[in-house]
Amino acid sequence: MLEKLFVVKIGGNIIDDDAKLAAFLISFAALKGKKILVHGGGKLATRLAEEMKVPQQMVDGRRITDAETLKIVTMVYAGYINKNIVARLQAHGSNAIGLSGADGNAIQAHKRVHPTLDYGFVGDVDSVNAPLLKSLLDQDLAIVLAPITHDKQGLLLNTNADTIAQEAAKGLSGHYDVELIYSFEKSGVLLDANDDSTVIASITPAYYQQLKAAQKIFAGMIPKLDNAFAALNSGVKKVIIGKAEQLQQLIAGSSGTTIINEQ
Amino acid sequence: MLEKLFVVKIGGNIIDDDAKLAAFLISFAALKGKKILVHGGGKLATRLAEEMKVPQQMVDGRRITDAETLKIVTMVYAGYINKNIVARLQAHGSNAIGLSGADGNAIQAHKRVHPTLDYGFVGDVDSVNAPLLKSLLDQDLAIVLAPITHDKQGLLLNTNADTIAQEAAKGLSGHYDVELIYSFEKSGVLLDANDDSTVIASITPAYYQQLKAAQKIFAGMIPKLDNAFAALNSGVKKVIIGKAEQLQQLIAGSSGTTIINEQ
Repeated sequence: MLEKLFVVKIGGNIIDDDAKLAAFLISFAALKGKKILVHGGGKLATRLAEEMKVPQQMVDGRRITDAETLKIVTMVYAGYINKNIVARLQAHGSNAIGLSGADGNAIQAHKRVHPTLDYGFVGDVDSVNAPLLKSLLDQDLAIVLAPITHDKQGLLLNTNADTIAQEAAKGLSGHYDVELIYSFEKSGVLLDANDDSTVIASITPAYYQQLKAAQKIFAGMIPKLDNAFAALNSGVKKVIIGKAEQLQQLIAGSSGTTIINEQ
Repeated sequence: MLEKLFVVKIGGNIIDDDAKLAAFLISFAALKGKKILVHGGGKLATRLAEEMKVPQQMVDGRRITDAETLKIVTMVYAGYINKNIVARLQAHGSNAIGLSGADGNAIQAHKRVHPTLDYGFVGDVDSVNAPLLKSLLDQDLAIVLAPITHDKQGLLLNTNADTIAQEAAKGLSGHYDVELIYSFEKSGVLLDANDDSTVIASITPAYYQQLKAAQKIFAGMIPKLDNAFAALNSGVKKVIIGKAEQLQQLIAGSSGTTIINEQ
């Protein structure tokens, strides 16, 4: 049996709420064993773009990353947010190390090619440097990944943090028993998107098909769940979705939604 | 005999000049063996502060770091500059990893205490995590250090890049034969500050005293040289001062000023 590794993704809503972030970081620091934290962006990048008068173009909820926007997200994600999270984890006794995908060639990507839309400097992941990440984890470092990758040709690329978490989890599944935790503002996958008490405790592939057929899954949750099952099919042991402030309960299975393949 | 380690510091003038930076990064990437690059700031932080309307207060050429300025230098130094340097080194085939002092507790500092002046969030270095840096170097990673440290209480601190270079060189001098290279826009230590052809090839402590007594050292160079001798007295083998674009020649001893203890 392999050693356990937790890959925990926190969303922008948590980063924007200092009380929630503080509570999360204390529980993440207290988490025993190997661990990776993947953080998204939050509103700071948008605010900075306003101050710098860089117009932001959103298409289907995705930020088009022009050269100036790439500069902003590199500064905010890989600089401000990443280093502040690392410093705060250090204060809580967790020896954290923050990386972008360029660092140690941790995550290599290519600029997205799309038939009709130019996303700009957005990267789709090609590979995760599992030996590097493993060597850091084996030194008992907690890795904090910013959602910035590179193409190994000198270009930094803006990459979706959910994808970073999923790829890191998959890439390390040969070395560890990986549990991938998507933590956000909701309590888990809900039967009623407006009612936090309708959390589904556990979803298997068969149950997922059934829920989808009955249109009981909120549309916004479907890509997350599709990704969760893709991760399971690539060797990840378990995917958990739930509230960032309940990290311990999520891991214990007493909160959130656990997504597993039947066995 | 220990393995050689190069600790190379590049100044803000090089970072601001893309042609010089590009040439430097190619020669740094080509440098064989263990290596650390320490970068300063450059004008981008000042420009960003203007755009964000954060007034900058300079006292004796030093930036007073208030909370908003700390945010800016964290974004620019540890984010934009650090990650772009790393990505470009990766493109040149050098497996670089960028760190702030918070990452892996690489460089711990404390907020500067000064009897009359509040420097704000400026850090004076307490310790360098030599085992961490050594473990990364031993994986053939080139380390790129941003001039941001932390106090292990959750606070990031703005720290002079010359000091970072010196402390890293000293901290690793028990593990490697360290050569510390301060590269900047001038050809070395000059007898005539306005004439690049008056480079002093080599300075020993006795010669330094002689030059100082004769007032032949440009005032701005004295702290650099004092630091250089302090580094030599703390185990660093050699300090070299010269042009960033001549990195290979500096190391070969055919350019710049070499500072050594008599032996």
